[in-house]
Amino acid sequence: MAKKTIIVFSGEYDKVMAAFVIANGAAAMDDEVTMFFTFWGLAALRKPGNAAGRKTGLQKMFSAMLPKRAEKLGISKFNFAGLGRFMMKKVMKAANVMSVTDLMDTAREQGIKIIACTMSMDVMGITREELIDGIEYAGVATYLAEADEGNVNLFI
Amino acid sequence: MAKKTIIVFSGEYDKVMAAFVIANGAAAMDDEVTMFFTFWGLAALRKPGNAAGRKTGLQKMFSAMLPKRAEKLGISKFNFAGLGRFMMKKVMKAANVMSVTDLMDTAREQGIKIIACTMSMDVMGITREELIDGIEYAGVATYLAEADEGNVNLFI
Amino acid sequence: MAKKTIIVFSGEYDKVMAAFVIANGAAAMDDEVTMFFTFWGLAALRKPGNAAGRKTGLQKMFSAMLPKRAEKLGISKFNFAGLGRFMMKKVMKAANVMSVTDLMDTAREQGIKIIACTMSMDVMGITREELIDGIEYAGVATYLAEADEGNVNLFI
Repeated sequence: MAKKTIIVFSGEYDKVMAAFVIANGAAAMDDEVTMFFTFWGLAALRKPGNAAGRKTGLQKMFSAMLPKRAEKLGISKFNFAGLGRFMMKKVMKAANVMSVTDLMDTAREQGIKIIACTMSMDVMGITREELIDGIEYAGVATYLAEADEGNVNLFI
Repeated sequence: MAKKTIIVFSGEYDKVMAAFVIANGAAAMDDEVTMFFTFWGLAALRKPGNAAGRKTGLQKMFSAMLPKRAEKLGISKFNFAGLGRFMMKKVMKAANVMSVTDLMDTAREQGIKIIACTMSMDVMGITREELIDGIEYAGVATYLAEADEGNVNLFI
Repeated sequence: MAKKTIIVFSGEYDKVMAAFVIANGAAAMDDEVTMFFTFWGLAALRKPGNAAGRKTGLQKMFSAMLPKRAEKLGISKFNFAGLGRFMMKKVMKAANVMSVTDLMDTAREQGIKIIACTMSMDVMGITREELIDGIEYAGVATYLAEADEGNVNLFI
């Protein structure tokens, strides 16, 4: 048993999916896992609906550029206005692969620690009200403390 | 002597090249190296020619979107319909830097373990017949077991 | 106290910023930190002005494609001809977050070792005259020696 940490910087569907597949695999092998969501990765933690909070005009613009929640994330290579994600999901279903939402549910059931990066939230203008429940909030010092204990630390 | 693992998620020429440069460098220093190819990274393992296998319509579409083999990969920043890769290769040749194909040959000569991620193959609709010979097939559990032994584990 | 290494492969403003935030955080916690800049990441080390040096025609083209210095880097998701970076900087200022230039100054004040990858410099046609002072030059063997001593090694 060992600790794993994953920084989820990228907000693309396929990369977020890869992050959760690794995290869930490690948790299933009894590893402790911490996922640190920062920048575009924060989009994966958005809850459905429109809990906007108070933002400056610029933060509103930035925030509007972010996908609304995990299932709306684009994919990293070819998106074609959502067609890439649509295709990927179709094929995933046929291949019995879990969606990001399912993977995230499993992650939380397995006790994986999900941290939202507070500095990125400030930069992107994302408030706690917009993010899903049951997650933690912290900065780079917390990440580094976790990573110091990890034997596998990835940046995705 | 220590173990290194590299997840090759990205399928861009420059990133795959970076992965092989690090892997070959480590192997030359007598490290054990495992490269785990997943998602777009699988394109680097495609063999030339058209060994399509049986696919659903959607898998065929996905598969068609993937570059046909290592030397056809785009680069991560500016591709201009292959011009970016063409330029990079020209300059690499002038600077005596090896192409991805050469780097991959060296990797295999040095005994670097190359694993294709079976879950991604299912999602992308890639069959074993389409990939080069002499590689292994496994899932995330195998990756994690290798990474547990590694002192440097990268996600590219 | 432990060592951290970060390969900065990507040249996007947000990713370079993330790299420096992690590096500075670690240095502030008394970790030794080595940053290895390669490929597009080298753009972050360019000094302002036009110290071109001797290049082949192809190297000139490649070099021209690279942003001129750290503050000109695009962001990884939405750039809109610099508007994305402009917005990010505005919001960062409002949120009291440091710019990449400030982060780099802090990194050097904290004694973070900055290495430019000589092989990438050859490929991209970047000369030492174009890069900022006070950095080191080395190849993959040096990176691997540093990473062997690191307990957290990231590829960004």
